[in-house]
Amino acid sequence: MLVNCVAYQEGKKLADIPKEDISEYLKLPACFVWVALKDPEPGELEEMREEFDLHELAVEDARKGHQRPKIEEYGDSLFAVLHAIEPQPDGDLRVGEVDVFVGTNYVLSVRVNSERGFADVRTRSEHEPHLLQYGAAYVFYALLDKVVDRYFPVLDQLESELETIEEQIFIKNQARSNIEALYELKSKLMTLKHAVDPLMEAVGKLYGGRVPQICAGMGEYFRDVYDHLQRLHSSLEGIREMMATAIQVNLGMINLNETEVTKKLAGWAAIIAVPTMIAGIYGMNFKHMPELDWEWGYPVSIAVMVILDIWLYFQFRKAKWL
Amino acid sequence: MLVNCVAYQEGKKLADIPKEDISEYLKLPACFVWVALKDPEPGELEEMREEFDLHELAVEDARKGHQRPKIEEYGDSLFAVLHAIEPQPDGDLRVGEVDVFVGTNYVLSVRVNSERGFADVRTRSEHEPHLLQYGAAYVFYALLDKVVDRYFPVLDQLESELETIEEQIFIKNQARSNIEALYELKSKLMTLKHAVDPLMEAVGKLYGGRVPQICAGMGEYFRDVYDHLQRLHSSLEGIREMMATAIQVNLGMINLNETEVTKKLAGWAAIIAVPTMIAGIYGMNFKHMPELDWEWGYPVSIAVMVILDIWLYFQFRKAKWL
Amino acid sequence: MLVNCVAYQEGKKLADIPKEDISEYLKLPACFVWVALKDPEPGELEEMREEFDLHELAVEDARKGHQRPKIEEYGDSLFAVLHAIEPQPDGDLRVGEVDVFVGTNYVLSVRVNSERGFADVRTRSEHEPHLLQYGAAYVFYALLDKVVDRYFPVLDQLESELETIEEQIFIKNQARSNIEALYELKSKLMTLKHAVDPLMEAVGKLYGGRVPQICAGMGEYFRDVYDHLQRLHSSLEGIREMMATAIQVNLGMINLNETEVTKKLAGWAAIIAVPTMIAGIYGMNFKHMPELDWEWGYPVSIAVMVILDIWLYFQFRKAKWL
Amino acid sequence: MLVNCVAYQEGKKLADIPKEDISEYLKLPACFVWVALKDPEPGELEEMREEFDLHELAVEDARKGHQRPKIEEYGDSLFAVLHAIEPQPDGDLRVGEVDVFVGTNYVLSVRVNSERGFADVRTRSEHEPHLLQYGAAYVFYALLDKVVDRYFPVLDQLESELETIEEQIFIKNQARSNIEALYELKSKLMTLKHAVDPLMEAVGKLYGGRVPQICAGMGEYFRDVYDHLQRLHSSLEGIREMMATAIQVNLGMINLNETEVTKKLAGWAAIIAVPTMIAGIYGMNFKHMPELDWEWGYPVSIAVMVILDIWLYFQFRKAKWL
Amino acid sequence: MLVNCVAYQEGKKLADIPKEDISEYLKLPACFVWVALKDPEPGELEEMREEFDLHELAVEDARKGHQRPKIEEYGDSLFAVLHAIEPQPDGDLRVGEVDVFVGTNYVLSVRVNSERGFADVRTRSEHEPHLLQYGAAYVFYALLDKVVDRYFPVLDQLESELETIEEQIFIKNQARSNIEALYELKSKLMTLKHAVDPLMEAVGKLYGGRVPQICAGMGEYFRDVYDHLQRLHSSLEGIREMMATAIQVNLGMINLNETEVTKKLAGWAAIIAVPTMIAGIYGMNFKHMPELDWEWGYPVSIAVMVILDIWLYFQFRKAKWL
Repeated sequence: MLVNCVAYQEGKKLADIPKEDISEYLKLPACFVWVALKDPEPGELEEMREEFDLHELAVEDARKGHQRPKIEEYGDSLFAVLHAIEPQPDGDLRVGEVDVFVGTNYVLSVRVNSERGFADVRTRSEHEPHLLQYGAAYVFYALLDKVVDRYFPVLDQLESELETIEEQIFIKNQARSNIEALYELKSKLMTLKHAVDPLMEAVGKLYGGRVPQICAGMGEYFRDVYDHLQRLHSSLEGIREMMATAIQVNLGMINLNETEVTKKLAGWAAIIAVPTMIAGIYGMNFKHMPELDWEWGYPVSIAVMVILDIWLYFQFRKAKWL
Repeated sequence: MLVNCVAYQEGKKLADIPKEDISEYLKLPACFVWVALKDPEPGELEEMREEFDLHELAVEDARKGHQRPKIEEYGDSLFAVLHAIEPQPDGDLRVGEVDVFVGTNYVLSVRVNSERGFADVRTRSEHEPHLLQYGAAYVFYALLDKVVDRYFPVLDQLESELETIEEQIFIKNQARSNIEALYELKSKLMTLKHAVDPLMEAVGKLYGGRVPQICAGMGEYFRDVYDHLQRLHSSLEGIREMMATAIQVNLGMINLNETEVTKKLAGWAAIIAVPTMIAGIYGMNFKHMPELDWEWGYPVSIAVMVILDIWLYFQFRKAKWL
Repeated sequence: MLVNCVAYQEGKKLADIPKEDISEYLKLPACFVWVALKDPEPGELEEMREEFDLHELAVEDARKGHQRPKIEEYGDSLFAVLHAIEPQPDGDLRVGEVDVFVGTNYVLSVRVNSERGFADVRTRSEHEPHLLQYGAAYVFYALLDKVVDRYFPVLDQLESELETIEEQIFIKNQARSNIEALYELKSKLMTLKHAVDPLMEAVGKLYGGRVPQICAGMGEYFRDVYDHLQRLHSSLEGIREMMATAIQVNLGMINLNETEVTKKLAGWAAIIAVPTMIAGIYGMNFKHMPELDWEWGYPVSIAVMVILDIWLYFQFRKAKWL
Repeated sequence: MLVNCVAYQEGKKLADIPKEDISEYLKLPACFVWVALKDPEPGELEEMREEFDLHELAVEDARKGHQRPKIEEYGDSLFAVLHAIEPQPDGDLRVGEVDVFVGTNYVLSVRVNSERGFADVRTRSEHEPHLLQYGAAYVFYALLDKVVDRYFPVLDQLESELETIEEQIFIKNQARSNIEALYELKSKLMTLKHAVDPLMEAVGKLYGGRVPQICAGMGEYFRDVYDHLQRLHSSLEGIREMMATAIQVNLGMINLNETEVTKKLAGWAAIIAVPTMIAGIYGMNFKHMPELDWEWGYPVSIAVMVILDIWLYFQFRKAKWL
Repeated sequence: MLVNCVAYQEGKKLADIPKEDISEYLKLPACFVWVALKDPEPGELEEMREEFDLHELAVEDARKGHQRPKIEEYGDSLFAVLHAIEPQPDGDLRVGEVDVFVGTNYVLSVRVNSERGFADVRTRSEHEPHLLQYGAAYVFYALLDKVVDRYFPVLDQLESELETIEEQIFIKNQARSNIEALYELKSKLMTLKHAVDPLMEAVGKLYGGRVPQICAGMGEYFRDVYDHLQRLHSSLEGIREMMATAIQVNLGMINLNETEVTKKLAGWAAIIAVPTMIAGIYGMNFKHMPELDWEWGYPVSIAVMVILDIWLYFQFRKAKWL
């Protein structure tokens, strides 16, 4: 589905144009065309390939989807695959894909399985003509920056989920739900990690030493994106390490609870077994058992049982078994 | 066993040729010969060594088999060892070996212990004469790409096996089968990893800076293969990390179950032991036990037992022990 | 909030100046201005941006906060983000941020969420005019050195907390508090680690090969800071590794305690169950049970019980079960 | 002990020579001397040092032994330390040392604490004069290749030991022997690893970019050895990772068995305790217990016990506790 | 405390000199002064700083102590921090510090908190004038070599402690002392590791490519030290890995023991509970219990109990529960 198709000249919007006219505008000087597609049909991609003369292998990747994030040079143009990560109402993470083709005079963004568009990027860019003048590379930067910025709320969500687990980890009877929560969190962490790490590596090549011709002069902007990605990366590593510790600690808590249950079992078993033993003794049928004939035999035996149990109870109490 | 032996010129098939004629065709300009062997006899390999003047050490490796994946330069020619991984009906993975010798005017592929051939590669190549014109290097790329493409269904199988385990991991009484499944999955993962990782490293040297002469001009194709291998690699790392977590989590679940069993044991033990103790007391043979003579003594004692047990039951219920 | 605004010339303090006069002093030869802000309003930052012509992206980072430590070049100037880590009375660590903008003739330090200022740095610098003569770069070094020096007491705190845990780890019934303490320590460790590691990497680029123009000639000073950071780093790694071992060892102790509790339970259960069994036997109602009629039947049976129990007790004692 | 001392010229054996004549033969053109020592006396080493003008530090290393594998350049000559690993009949690994001194016209191999000699290397080399013509470097390659080739059966032994453990890991009551076997296997793995890894690193410097003068022109041979070492390395890493998983899995199995034992204990305890409780109730001495007077009271009570137990048995059966 | 102060010329000892004369001797050609301090007062260090014109930052480090091992260049001179590790009679490790300042014509060694001096190094050096001729750099090498050589007995101690633990790990009832021993060993391992690893890195820069001017021509000697350090490093890594496995295995053994205790508990519980149940049944007070009137009722019931128990005992025996 075609979302937008706009031509810009010297940082200013020329016009919304029908896609048939793209090739005409591409010939204008200092003009570039910015096309946005959403969940495109194969036919639409093919049309674009012809309009912009995209490389076969790049279009193939966009068509197939499920690529890992990357930025590849094909001659003068760039092909970028980004993961759009969108938290769902039920807490899950939805992974969409944003493919961006960038040439000297065009930007083509293809959004697949992703709800949130880039209308705000377009609006803001159109309000900053002094930046938009940089051309297609600036648009590429703006899209990249937007996608990366949207990772931060996801990171925050993961951090707050970890904090919730941390708070519950030392509360009894939460072990099972903690394990499940930790496993689910780990799974989300990996999703975000798979979006961030390869992209960080790729963006690292857009500034500094040898950069693609198309990104020249924008090094500080791409370094800023790289810096954000590195922040995400190191936060994710931090979460990962705390999670690993949390899993171990949780296992320790489970084992500790087992010990405490066993102690309780042992304690109460003793408290019940001792009177049973005494009762058993006075239930023996020997002819000559003088206590049996005593008038106070019964209440005394009961009293002994009770006293022993009280003593046991406080012993176990002192030893923290009960 | 000789599977095929075909000569090509300028991207078009010349003829199926007997292997004795190979040397003649090698002299034709812009012509190359593509030979496919399957589980060859030592004699066949020796013949080929003489026809194509292969390096002794490379042929030695092909003869012995059980090599790790690699791509080696011997002067102008390349020698590649690839692992062909084929899932068996029983879920196991079968590891075959594909050895490829590539020179300026020949490609020799040797398939060992591998069911699936490369007839489709040959057919598709013959339908794309504009690509086949690149010569032996293109055939090498096509074979490499095919072998790597066949790793993806294996990866999918591993991922779906992991998902199955993940679903079962929080279900009780599945711990044993989960452990076994995780161990088996780990073992398959290592098999795929041993096919992918060394190959990724090797393919990484076929594009970019200094590449073997024979691969010159095909950088984007080999980068594409490299990219697929990197995707496999990072997916495998992801599975590995989730598996490590799954193993830990599974251990946690086992310990948790132990705790729950102990709690149940303790709970029911108490429920049975309390009436036993009371019964023991009224089984004592003291002469003076007034309760024994009461008319309602027996039903009251039974009632006390039942009431205590009901109270215990709900106590344990509340504490989630039963 | 503006804390200080002072102009220096040739290592000597010229005057406290109002911020409106900054631009005048910047024009003097061999003169630099050192401004300190604390928890600044957006307006204050904007003023400074204009006075010193700071880069938009750097000011943006300072405004937003929550950056990871870094040192970035923007043309001739540097922008550094440092973490100020201050132990709180309750043992927690408070993470503040210190942003430093350094140009050829100015230093602007911005302190956010941090109690301890840098008045002592200023005082000491003013007493060492031969060093202050180096200009803004020296002030930057002095601030950096101070921030890093303040990490050492935090490190000492972590080390002594670990030692406390180590001492308690082999004491029984401390497992729960050990787990909690280890987890909390891990969390503090990560806080310090996130302050130290990225900074170490960044400072490593301020001496040796290619350094920012502004730091030229001060290599040995920055190497000294780097060396301190590396010491912190390797101590943190050491703590981390000992902690990982401590967590495992603690788990082992918990399991060991479980075993000991089970042994005790088993031992006392046997000691109670054996007399109960004997009593049960003599409680049977068979007509012909000769022992029942013996005069010494009852005391002998009691004696047998006691002897068996004493024997059991010493058996269990010998086997270290009780 | 002197094992051999032979002079070669242009790939052909000249003569077995007494060690006193070595210096004479060293003067002949295109001639080199190959000496083999076994467990040498300090005096023998000293003699050789003088004959071949070996470096003091290298001879020191050979004298002391217990070096890690390495290849060092001393001017024009090489000094290599290799580990000879020989499986003993009882399954243990014996670690011997092979020190090789290589100069332009001599090879001195010193074998310490190693049973298997290199007579076969010498024989094969003498049958391949076209290779032996390369001189001392070829002999060095042949020795290196032999030592490395002998690692493969050791690797196979480790792999088959791991497979044996893998088969037993899910069999009950094997946990203890599995743990011991895993620990022993780990220990052997480390032995082989310490032989392979440093050597791989060292051999990697004998081909490619800057190689020692003496090895020039033999790059493909040393690359072949490197390739074998890399295969060993990655197989060892594979075994290590599977072992780590096996240890975890084994722990899981132990815990699982514990749970199963506890379940069985709980199940049978209930089956015994229920009739005991009922019997206790009818052992009470209340005057008015109508059931006691019923004619069928006794058999009915027994029947109730049996029925309850059968019901319990099948309940536990269904829950997989028994 | 001043230990020694000696001037050397061309490899020969000139004289023991008072520290006031140092500056005179420094002016002699081919002469160098070797000063040894032990636990110096701040004043002594200050004196030396003036005599030898040492860098302020280096002297600061020596004064403060608690540095990590390092070798730093200050212009033409070197400053090295080494850890002296001395096993104490009680098995603990004492960490002292050796700081060495090396210039073209002086060596100053400062020993802090370390018992063992370097008199033997001095003696040996004075007996090897051909080596001492190299000047201060040789003395530096000799000190470095000595410090590193003294790590080997410490390593041997750690290895033999690990072996002791390994032998005890499969012995029952040793788990607690094993855990404590492993933790203590880990702690010592880290101490040695912190001495070795940073030093290895530092020494690696004293040979090969760009080396400090002062060390030129002594590459083979420093490579030898590096080699020793690498041997220490890889042995430490080996111990570390075996220890990690030992900790896991020990945990497995603890859990295994728990299982065995539970089995024993279950087995004996059954053996006691079965007769108790039977006795309970014949303790019931039903009027019509024909067995009670049988003459052989009592002995038969006892016999049944004994037979059942014997049968149970052998059942448990067979299942390895008892």
